[in-house]
Amino acid sequence: MRRWNGWGDDTIEFALDADALGFLAGRIGSGTAIADAAFEQACARLRPSRLAPQRLIDTAAAVRLRHALGQSLPDWLRLRYGEIDTAPDGVAFPESAQDVRELLAYAAEHDVALVPHGGGTSVAGHLTAPGGPRAVLSVSTVRLCQMLSLDRQSQLASFGAGVFGPDLEAQLRAHGYTLGHFPQSFEYSTLGGWIVTRSSGQQSLRYGRIEQMFKGGSVETPAGRLDLPTFPASAAGTDLREMVLGSEGRLGILTEATVRITPLAEYEAFHAVFFPGWEQAEAAVRAVVQGGLSLSMLRLSNPLETVTMLALAGHKGLIGALETWLSWRGCKEDKCMLMIGVSGKKRAAKTALADALALVRPHGGVHIGRKMGDKWKQNRFRNVYLRNAAWQHGYAIDTVETAVDWPRVRGMMQAVEDAAGAALALHGEKVHTYTHLSHLYTQGASVYTTFVYRLAGNFEQDLARWRSLKCAVSMAIVDHGGTISHQHGVGSDHAPYLEAEKGPLGIGAMRALFRHFDPQQIMNPGKLLPAESEAP
Amino acid sequence: MRRWNGWGDDTIEFALDADALGFLAGRIGSGTAIADAAFEQACARLRPSRLAPQRLIDTAAAVRLRHALGQSLPDWLRLRYGEIDTAPDGVAFPESAQDVRELLAYAAEHDVALVPHGGGTSVAGHLTAPGGPRAVLSVSTVRLCQMLSLDRQSQLASFGAGVFGPDLEAQLRAHGYTLGHFPQSFEYSTLGGWIVTRSSGQQSLRYGRIEQMFKGGSVETPAGRLDLPTFPASAAGTDLREMVLGSEGRLGILTEATVRITPLAEYEAFHAVFFPGWEQAEAAVRAVVQGGLSLSMLRLSNPLETVTMLALAGHKGLIGALETWLSWRGCKEDKCMLMIGVSGKKRAAKTALADALALVRPHGGVHIGRKMGDKWKQNRFRNVYLRNAAWQHGYAIDTVETAVDWPRVRGMMQAVEDAAGAALALHGEKVHTYTHLSHLYTQGASVYTTFVYRLAGNFEQDLARWRSLKCAVSMAIVDHGGTISHQHGVGSDHAPYLEAEKGPLGIGAMRALFRHFDPQQIMNPGKLLPAESEAP
Repeated sequence: MRRWNGWGDDTIEFALDADALGFLAGRIGSGTAIADAAFEQACARLRPSRLAPQRLIDTAAAVRLRHALGQSLPDWLRLRYGEIDTAPDGVAFPESAQDVRELLAYAAEHDVALVPHGGGTSVAGHLTAPGGPRAVLSVSTVRLCQMLSLDRQSQLASFGAGVFGPDLEAQLRAHGYTLGHFPQSFEYSTLGGWIVTRSSGQQSLRYGRIEQMFKGGSVETPAGRLDLPTFPASAAGTDLREMVLGSEGRLGILTEATVRITPLAEYEAFHAVFFPGWEQAEAAVRAVVQGGLSLSMLRLSNPLETVTMLALAGHKGLIGALETWLSWRGCKEDKCMLMIGVSGKKRAAKTALADALALVRPHGGVHIGRKMGDKWKQNRFRNVYLRNAAWQHGYAIDTVETAVDWPRVRGMMQAVEDAAGAALALHGEKVHTYTHLSHLYTQGASVYTTFVYRLAGNFEQDLARWRSLKCAVSMAIVDHGGTISHQHGVGSDHAPYLEAEKGPLGIGAMRALFRHFDPQQIMNPGKLLPAESEAP
Repeated sequence: MRRWNGWGDDTIEFALDADALGFLAGRIGSGTAIADAAFEQACARLRPSRLAPQRLIDTAAAVRLRHALGQSLPDWLRLRYGEIDTAPDGVAFPESAQDVRELLAYAAEHDVALVPHGGGTSVAGHLTAPGGPRAVLSVSTVRLCQMLSLDRQSQLASFGAGVFGPDLEAQLRAHGYTLGHFPQSFEYSTLGGWIVTRSSGQQSLRYGRIEQMFKGGSVETPAGRLDLPTFPASAAGTDLREMVLGSEGRLGILTEATVRITPLAEYEAFHAVFFPGWEQAEAAVRAVVQGGLSLSMLRLSNPLETVTMLALAGHKGLIGALETWLSWRGCKEDKCMLMIGVSGKKRAAKTALADALALVRPHGGVHIGRKMGDKWKQNRFRNVYLRNAAWQHGYAIDTVETAVDWPRVRGMMQAVEDAAGAALALHGEKVHTYTHLSHLYTQGASVYTTFVYRLAGNFEQDLARWRSLKCAVSMAIVDHGGTISHQHGVGSDHAPYLEAEKGPLGIGAMRALFRHFDPQQIMNPGKLLPAESEAP
């Protein structure tokens, strides 16, 4: 069963062994385990529902609690400490577009705020019920989950927008196709969630971001239905799909989506390459991504992430031998690990891999083969369980991500890591930070930084630590010319920083757009755009 | 010098020989040459300017006339017959964003409508001055034409938005780069024009559409400046670039644009392949485009376009020999010509070509080598001069284009060609129509149809013929599920058909957006969105 206050399924554990704990303790001190609030206890503390009865709405406390929050660190703090100050007054499970229209009419009539809910994996505060006197209804899309059509000639498939990643892929695989969208949240996130938050998957180098996959669909908005027909391309004015992408529930509820599909890759492999240091590694990946090779993934870890991954990998003996060998080849304490993925026709994939390896060699790249790549693939959706394991030992893990053009990549990485260190120092704590470039483009890269630090064991103090850190790293991103999110979206947590990149005129344009579709402003109020200037 | 009432430079002629004229006469009857109105005569008929003097505005009749219209067939009719009922009251040539702001302030103060003007190559009526009591100012962007920056690391370059295609490419070529955007209008159209009309170039298969190239920039709007910073990708809400793409002058004037650039291709070649008939040809190009090969162009002509191209090519003897040889290989009267382009690294390009040829062979594809491809490349921006030559012999040439998913391609082609025939039959005239798929996608194709028919020799009659044809083919596009434009944009001519694909809610969203940036509605009123419901 899904954990109510942590990541993923409660039968899956990802343990930290003594060496890993020793590594963390050495860097940031020993953690202290904290007792979590019980589910029943948290349920009992929810205030009574304010919603008028409706056939599609469930107001049971357990259901409300399970839809109250997402997976951001402040969401976790609230759940773990049982401090759920806001929760929806009910949850609806529409099974058709007609049901969604019924809920929109109900919300308009009763002045209820709607919070669309897909897989509940948001790490940016998209799902928090707004406070205030208005009742709040969470609208779960998970029963809108069927495959509706498959057009082999055009390589398009339509699904109910609430379909989960694995269900979508299973249905396509039966016909020989894949969508190819594999964010780390893949197992618990939905197609609609990916679209409205502009998600990006681990193999975006081959399959593109969700923006490139989303070809059409249907959105139920308070002002009516918006149908998006599919065209291979169009010069007919504004592309309405772009109004839906990244709209984060502000303009309506996406009920159906048509996506581009691709025949299943006949061959797939992930290979690891090590570099002596960051400078060589960055130059190498730029040469590879600008070389136009048909790769499916490039993922470059900085020295500290490389050290951390090796330390947490287990298999101490094997890793030790690898490090000794790498050291002979010039990859010592500053070594950086690059993961290269290839997917597709066997001959083309092998050629692309060989071309990539030829391009990294002059930069000191040392190819160590498939073994670590296979391991990475095996754990691609498992590493996130580390958050559960770390919490059990008194550590918080949080991440932040952005994207910048190439000249800014290195400075951004440094600035974000430094900002985190300074922020936690104010609390007398250390933070273990490490970074990778998760998505590479000819133009630049996403910069994805992880923070591990100790929990205080007290809700207010832990929230304060997180706030300091989040604020500091977000300001660093803004100051160094990055976008406030490359793949997680805006939600509540990034909303205060959005104007830095959109400008007041751009923010106003987004508001004008959402007002058109939602004149009463019942859709996910306060998300994406800062709440303070919400008043019409 | 640019022709004032026809295509391109007046030193360039593209003559039709006796065989070509015989071919046309055989299909639709002999044309009768018509005397054109003189430039001076047309100038003299312009009404006096209604504009208050301003330092940036030129109100000379000759300048106003040269900015009065574009290159659509109704624009041509007005120019050739000297029936210019609307012309701007003046033309401004801003040299900086500051100048543009000055003009926006002037327009707001004096309630003047602004019509942005790039290269003046629109074939959809983007440039017509709106009628009515309001004075109209054409704002030419051609002095905003400098290269502003070049970032080799990120492969980005910034230009003034009024830079013409050849000037942009020349500046990039000096540094070893290309934009790679080559619409047929390339020589006389501007970067800004491409962006605000969502243009697509002949080698979009390699370089993408302008949407994929446009990375950031700056727009002066009546409500203020909209700056679009560059990011490799972003999940931060609505992508503001998408508000500018396809905005057709409705939200402001694009002054600067940053575009993705690519190192110059070290090798480029265009090869021709013939097929016995359409069915085989369509199956073959679908296999090629879905095979994921690194090609730069695929362009498939239907049987009538193939016949027409061979008939108008000159070199009767050579073409005759080719047709005899093709006939032995099974490509007879229904043969279809496919042009395949490859560009890039020599080895990769040759591999891609070989792979493509291997994929077309099972569909009856007969490769005839590079000769016709070289000829095509040589004339890639010259064929459009045929419109001038045809007019001199009493023939009108017009084109229409759309894009549809694969299952609809063949039906669309037939429907558009049939609609044109039926429309001209109402006027007792024949039309010679032929079609090609100009841009191929895994999802479908653009369908580009050309019409040749006789001029009546009378403005009203010729406008009526065009109106019948345009209305019939546009309705056919809408009825068969196509977008009203794949690459020409909407302008005035396609505006009545836009709601069919956007829906009333989508049209309203576009209006809400443009009103935000342009509350007084001074920007290009009546274009893109139908004028009748303009009232706030």
